[in-house]
Amino acid sequence: MAYNPAPLERLIEQFARFNGIGRKGAARLAYQVLKMEASQAQAFADAIRDAHAKVHRCSICQSFTDAQICPICSDNGRDPSTILVVESPQDVSAFERTREYKGRYHVLHGLISPVEGITADQLAIRELLARLQDGSVKEVIMATNPTVEGEATALYLSKIIKPLGVRTTRLASGLPVGSNLEYADEVTLFRALSGRGEL
Amino acid sequence: MAYNPAPLERLIEQFARFNGIGRKGAARLAYQVLKMEASQAQAFADAIRDAHAKVHRCSICQSFTDAQICPICSDNGRDPSTILVVESPQDVSAFERTREYKGRYHVLHGLISPVEGITADQLAIRELLARLQDGSVKEVIMATNPTVEGEATALYLSKIIKPLGVRTTRLASGLPVGSNLEYADEVTLFRALSGRGEL
Repeated sequence: MAYNPAPLERLIEQFARFNGIGRKGAARLAYQVLKMEASQAQAFADAIRDAHAKVHRCSICQSFTDAQICPICSDNGRDPSTILVVESPQDVSAFERTREYKGRYHVLHGLISPVEGITADQLAIRELLARLQDGSVKEVIMATNPTVEGEATALYLSKIIKPLGVRTTRLASGLPVGSNLEYADEVTLFRALSGRGEL
Repeated sequence: MAYNPAPLERLIEQFARFNGIGRKGAARLAYQVLKMEASQAQAFADAIRDAHAKVHRCSICQSFTDAQICPICSDNGRDPSTILVVESPQDVSAFERTREYKGRYHVLHGLISPVEGITADQLAIRELLARLQDGSVKEVIMATNPTVEGEATALYLSKIIKPLGVRTTRLASGLPVGSNLEYADEVTLFRALSGRGEL
């Protein structure tokens, strides 16, 4: 594909660096950029620089914010005694959409993964433990994904946090709402059974 | 998802404007931008502006180039008597990868599509006809996709071009190499049969 003019090729390479975008997908996106109005291409470029420059981690929960402290951490209406621990800022958005959780969050920015060489000290665990020092936090909810890495990280954290006298809980595993028993895998079915509650 | 800081939300909206990127995919890409090194985010933004500013249509074949005339149109080794007509610059790259075609190209930048409201005058047809005026072009190969729009556009062009005394041909339709007869649709099978050649 050496036929592309150099500036187009460079843009394709930039798109292809993203996880989830292959060479062909990158080319399709780059061609779409060429077809944009100049003002639109400029707005896209500005949005990238702007987001990268202005958005950073909240000094408390480590989620992304353009302030020093994110809106949730600075909201006195949110229960400071409960911290829900998630892998990424996207997960915070997912819980916020439920409109049911009224506590605070903590974003780890990753999960422990020996396969990918991600160890505990690369995650925002120190910042989490710092929040547990003054005794105001009563419960830490492990809301990492129900995957091998998510379970391992939850277990690792609970072993550190329990000795501090803080209750640690885990999201329920079971059948997703609207799903079909027939298509559920064995592990999910087993979890749904062993986690059954009173009607 | 009003939880995202404004600069992040704006970047997500920019990504979501692309065809083939939904809201969730846009969010995943935007989060990847935040995780980049500052220099990498800057390089991405620069690549967008650079590609948009420097890449434009070749004044002859209408493909994308950063020069006035693209490398293929300015290559005297390429046969000027044959023009292969394609929908988009990506298609030029596809044919160049075969390393078999030695003629020139013409990019229409679209296909006639009543459904999408794209009419012949929105395509680079005038530029194609201009190239046929001096009688040097002997054959125009219609290499639009074998879809309803591609076939309609090829037929439309051939009706204009044939009266000029220029041979117009169409890419062969048939079974893709490496495919399985069993899974071929009826139309493709019929085309493969009716277009059969001597062994």
